[in-house]
Amino acid sequence: MRSIDLNSDLGESFGAWAMGDDATMLGIVTSANVACGFHAGDPAGILATLKAAAAQGVSVGAHVAYPDLAGFGRRNMDVASADLVADIVYQIGALQGLAAAAGTTVRYVKPHGALYNTIAQDARQARDVITAIQAIDPSLALVVLAGSPLAGWAEAAGLRVVAEAFADRGYTPQGTLVSRREPGAVLHDPERVARRMLRLVTEGVVEAVDGSLARVRADSICVHGDSPGAVAMAVEVRRTLEQAGVTLRAFA
Amino acid sequence: MRSIDLNSDLGESFGAWAMGDDATMLGIVTSANVACGFHAGDPAGILATLKAAAAQGVSVGAHVAYPDLAGFGRRNMDVASADLVADIVYQIGALQGLAAAAGTTVRYVKPHGALYNTIAQDARQARDVITAIQAIDPSLALVVLAGSPLAGWAEAAGLRVVAEAFADRGYTPQGTLVSRREPGAVLHDPERVARRMLRLVTEGVVEAVDGSLARVRADSICVHGDSPGAVAMAVEVRRTLEQAGVTLRAFA
Amino acid sequence: MRSIDLNSDLGESFGAWAMGDDATMLGIVTSANVACGFHAGDPAGILATLKAAAAQGVSVGAHVAYPDLAGFGRRNMDVASADLVADIVYQIGALQGLAAAAGTTVRYVKPHGALYNTIAQDARQARDVITAIQAIDPSLALVVLAGSPLAGWAEAAGLRVVAEAFADRGYTPQGTLVSRREPGAVLHDPERVARRMLRLVTEGVVEAVDGSLARVRADSICVHGDSPGAVAMAVEVRRTLEQAGVTLRAFA
Amino acid sequence: MRSIDLNSDLGESFGAWAMGDDATMLGIVTSANVACGFHAGDPAGILATLKAAAAQGVSVGAHVAYPDLAGFGRRNMDVASADLVADIVYQIGALQGLAAAAGTTVRYVKPHGALYNTIAQDARQARDVITAIQAIDPSLALVVLAGSPLAGWAEAAGLRVVAEAFADRGYTPQGTLVSRREPGAVLHDPERVARRMLRLVTEGVVEAVDGSLARVRADSICVHGDSPGAVAMAVEVRRTLEQAGVTLRAFA
Repeated sequence: MRSIDLNSDLGESFGAWAMGDDATMLGIVTSANVACGFHAGDPAGILATLKAAAAQGVSVGAHVAYPDLAGFGRRNMDVASADLVADIVYQIGALQGLAAAAGTTVRYVKPHGALYNTIAQDARQARDVITAIQAIDPSLALVVLAGSPLAGWAEAAGLRVVAEAFADRGYTPQGTLVSRREPGAVLHDPERVARRMLRLVTEGVVEAVDGSLARVRADSICVHGDSPGAVAMAVEVRRTLEQAGVTLRAFA
Repeated sequence: MRSIDLNSDLGESFGAWAMGDDATMLGIVTSANVACGFHAGDPAGILATLKAAAAQGVSVGAHVAYPDLAGFGRRNMDVASADLVADIVYQIGALQGLAAAAGTTVRYVKPHGALYNTIAQDARQARDVITAIQAIDPSLALVVLAGSPLAGWAEAAGLRVVAEAFADRGYTPQGTLVSRREPGAVLHDPERVARRMLRLVTEGVVEAVDGSLARVRADSICVHGDSPGAVAMAVEVRRTLEQAGVTLRAFA
Repeated sequence: MRSIDLNSDLGESFGAWAMGDDATMLGIVTSANVACGFHAGDPAGILATLKAAAAQGVSVGAHVAYPDLAGFGRRNMDVASADLVADIVYQIGALQGLAAAAGTTVRYVKPHGALYNTIAQDARQARDVITAIQAIDPSLALVVLAGSPLAGWAEAAGLRVVAEAFADRGYTPQGTLVSRREPGAVLHDPERVARRMLRLVTEGVVEAVDGSLARVRADSICVHGDSPGAVAMAVEVRRTLEQAGVTLRAFA
Repeated sequence: MRSIDLNSDLGESFGAWAMGDDATMLGIVTSANVACGFHAGDPAGILATLKAAAAQGVSVGAHVAYPDLAGFGRRNMDVASADLVADIVYQIGALQGLAAAAGTTVRYVKPHGALYNTIAQDARQARDVITAIQAIDPSLALVVLAGSPLAGWAEAAGLRVVAEAFADRGYTPQGTLVSRREPGAVLHDPERVARRMLRLVTEGVVEAVDGSLARVRADSICVHGDSPGAVAMAVEVRRTLEQAGVTLRAFA
């Protein structure tokens, strides 16, 4: 594999509160996971981010979440299937509408926060998200945690699946993420992170916490933009990949 | 004119709280103004109403509103243009997404409550709503208060305009609504209301509060379904029109 | 025991949406669990209910919940301790303020819905609720599920604990509630329910689903008012208890 | 007058979104207007700010607002009296509860944003806010715009009134604020601002936009903390006043 996608969470300001540096990140990534108003994002701010993404030629995805603005969508919620399906459709539709107004198109769906983590493993909520995507537009791709059960469930349902790796996270020898409660879960050195991602792209492996090589198949790398340090790391990942001849290209 | 549309506000339940009798009303009206979540409606409830509308062949419109759940969208809010445009696009898009999942299509936009009243007269907010519709889908019709300045503004902007009359409201000799603060603003007798609407459809006039005949051009009649008495009135309006040979047909 | 408290959930309307028949229920119960705005209740509606409770001499408690209006507080949420403690204090304080304006006083706290069920068993969230009560006013009583671990935890922390039974629920031989997923979980016959509650008050036992007698110690009986049938059942419970000479008296 | 109060808006973070530098500002001001959750502030963040205010000996007021998180309380809303009274009581009560948990007490009320501007002139909404304060605790002071009609209405109602001046705003010869739509509305030079405030405190005058001296009677000066430049200006105002021998002291 000599090309890869870089994705990041954008459009996460809300009303008077700013978050992230969308303008800078849109110059780094090839895919923008744009908030849909349930965990973050107000319509006018989302629209501005979508217009900037359109101007930069960055691909747009719906960053759907639980309805939990106060908790930023990071809290597990036991949402019934009828509600979860409709909540996801509603968010995708709202973003599609704003994307049309911005002259672009929603290409994929990436669940956010607690919903992302839950559906990676939970069959019931995973099925609800898959059902929602099929109900509104089955051509939308679904971004999933590389190696998670969700990948198989979504593929079996006929969805296009995009597996992603996390640039700044540690991996177990089995190719899963090191829990945030354990040492080595988060990496901070931009150069080391960039080298790891280069190896991921070119060799399909990432060095695990125990020093062994874990096999990770990823179509996209997730980088962050919510602090100056995070932006610097994203810049370094892009620079290192490009210098090595890797093409940065949206998967969708 | 020997055909007319009947429209009503539906999908206005929220979470554990029920409102209106959507199932019954969908057997009476030809167009359903469906709440979009800002003044009323949660995604699962909206989706259920849209599926019922699709099953009944009732046309669907986006009942967009100010972001004011606690006030049911009935309170004037001084929303800046960038916010108002994006708020409207967001709501239309969300409903389009749910409509796609329900196997139907959003055909028109009808602003709700305080937004409806404001843009009937206020050029700035009217322009914002028109801009929003043009940005997401210029083929959407806009339902407006018959005789209001908004009708002219929207037509000048190239939108398809649908003028509506209110079955249960009193009219001035000039063909405008009697203010709710004045006597004669609201009518309660179903038979009288139905006869008035028949005359509106067949002669283009409605008897005003002073007994004179006011000229009112309407493409649609708004009826209510939020109480048993309101449903009975809607039934009577439909029955009277049909008995007189008027065809009930969605404008869109 | 020849006296008992009857409690019910009130103040659960929200904005344009009505729920329950507070006026009638305030003539039946001795304690009103009043919504605090997180799962239900808007300030003006809560204030009206508090004024009616004050006029009727009904004791008032804070019916605190997770911040989930769309889910009516019935969905489990993984709220971090710092947030949960502050959320509970905020709700109690808001109700205390409205109670002062209504000429009454908040006497107790009864968690609602998913929070109620969770803290009956979950030590971490139980401790957070106890911490919140101690932080704002340690003299507030805590209403708990009779026989639950929470009762012991709250007593050990020095809180006054009020155990409650549910009039319309089936009990296991161990004196716990039959799960809503199993047969016999909910009872519908007002006379049977009333007789069971009389026996609970006078003998300290309730007939379990297997016909055996379960020992249940309760200081209060929870009745519902969210449907005409529920109100009729509450009336029957009160009538039966009074006829048998049981005094209905608020615990606080 | 040789003593004055300095107040600032604090506690305005929300969930994942930070705003302002509360820790620094609590070392500068003598009164903290703390958000109550309607325009900004979540319970845990508010509680943290209240604990810091208590630790620093800074007086606490309730910064009450319209229910408009997305608009940060800056949009005019036509809230009916029953709702406005109850909304204000609810917010004050919630803050009193959190203050009790933080070991401090709410001493005053300062309306925020659009509500502040509206009640300075609008008799109906002003009366609602006054009614709310009297209903929950008539000993709470009300911070008002110096020279506004509200000052007279609140005094006539028996409330303690605290008039405030704005450090960074231009004044008309009549002692009212220059509209934000006109030149000279906002001042940016910290030293000039500080000198003006010293003169206000010692002479009771402020230099107006036309160079004349306007008489302004103020018990408190409002400074901002929402940007590094704003914090620097607040520091300069405090330093200049202290160097001139003015005592900085909370009014309450």
